[in-house]
Amino acid sequence: MNKYKSLSSRELVSMDKNVRIRMLNMLSGLRTAYLIGTCDIDKTSNLGLFNSVVHIGASPALLGFIMRPVHVRRDTYCNILETESFTLNAIHPDFLERAHKASSKYDAAVSEFDMVGLTEEWRQDTPSPFVLESRLKIGLGLQEILDIKSNDTKLIIGRIEHIFIEGENIIDADGHIRHEELDLIVVSGLEQYYSILPLERFRYKN
Amino acid sequence: MNKYKSLSSRELVSMDKNVRIRMLNMLSGLRTAYLIGTCDIDKTSNLGLFNSVVHIGASPALLGFIMRPVHVRRDTYCNILETESFTLNAIHPDFLERAHKASSKYDAAVSEFDMVGLTEEWRQDTPSPFVLESRLKIGLGLQEILDIKSNDTKLIIGRIEHIFIEGENIIDADGHIRHEELDLIVVSGLEQYYSILPLERFRYKN
Repeated sequence: MNKYKSLSSRELVSMDKNVRIRMLNMLSGLRTAYLIGTCDIDKTSNLGLFNSVVHIGASPALLGFIMRPVHVRRDTYCNILETESFTLNAIHPDFLERAHKASSKYDAAVSEFDMVGLTEEWRQDTPSPFVLESRLKIGLGLQEILDIKSNDTKLIIGRIEHIFIEGENIIDADGHIRHEELDLIVVSGLEQYYSILPLERFRYKN
Repeated sequence: MNKYKSLSSRELVSMDKNVRIRMLNMLSGLRTAYLIGTCDIDKTSNLGLFNSVVHIGASPALLGFIMRPVHVRRDTYCNILETESFTLNAIHPDFLERAHKASSKYDAAVSEFDMVGLTEEWRQDTPSPFVLESRLKIGLGLQEILDIKSNDTKLIIGRIEHIFIEGENIIDADGHIRHEELDLIVVSGLEQYYSILPLERFRYKN
């Protein structure tokens, strides 16, 4: 393996902290970036950018994401505890720059929707706000919170209550979602965004 | 939202089971597909395809993935318990079809490496086998296992012990990994693969 750059755990520890954080955030690879919409009991809204959304199961329909340590104020976390609700909103190239701004920290009293220039969308059957501009939105109820002891992060699990997908022809009759037609974006770490190109489809045999 | 296709949790439950599973697996979006390499104490190797790898933290350096219920035999899980070790190996277009075959179920006594036509690579300092053909490989030690009560799945967390990346110029001095030069693939659900195109890079301010 002499063509390979090799890094041991010892070398990782001795790296500059910011370099290590950037590299390790990118090392897990690429994934769809979602804006998570929440609000407190007074309907003050919040928007956060997350890259750790993961499929947990289909029966019941569950999605999860990783929440960083809550020693410091995390509005998304506090709001989810208060309302037992959150929304996932996919991002697209036409509002990528605005969406990225939601990864910065803002005062609890201000709404990230206003700060970044995206539009709140309230629906009768979901306590949390959706992002009007998103073409793939999911409303979830809080299902389970797991404490990750190794580093004080949490796995937050929600059960899917509503799905909204723009266009009648994005989901095929067999359940296949044509993400490329939704212009879905993937992100590596916290900074580098990519678009996607369909490559191949193989059948999955369970 | 009249241009939107809407699905409620009640409609989800009434869908055909296979259609629902396919759709919900794709709904969480796209992510890098990894082959997980493991072996039992007799060094019988195993290879499984996973699409749920997620960054858990940088200090210590942790990655996690979701393990389906272990009521049925899961060689990857049993091997990780036995050796407290596993490897993550990114996949690329030149061996995508072989990698996909690792998502099928094979007998415990046979090695998926042989069945799909990929090459075991053993290294002195890692108990589990790597995939020789992969250009981004990570050796991990078992760190923590969390039980997800809602559906009997598990979050398996490993701490990074070794990283191998092909080419000296893939990681920039600031830690940025140029995934596009590694020809990394993302997968939606269990069937649809995509290649990636760099879009934009924005700075992240913590």
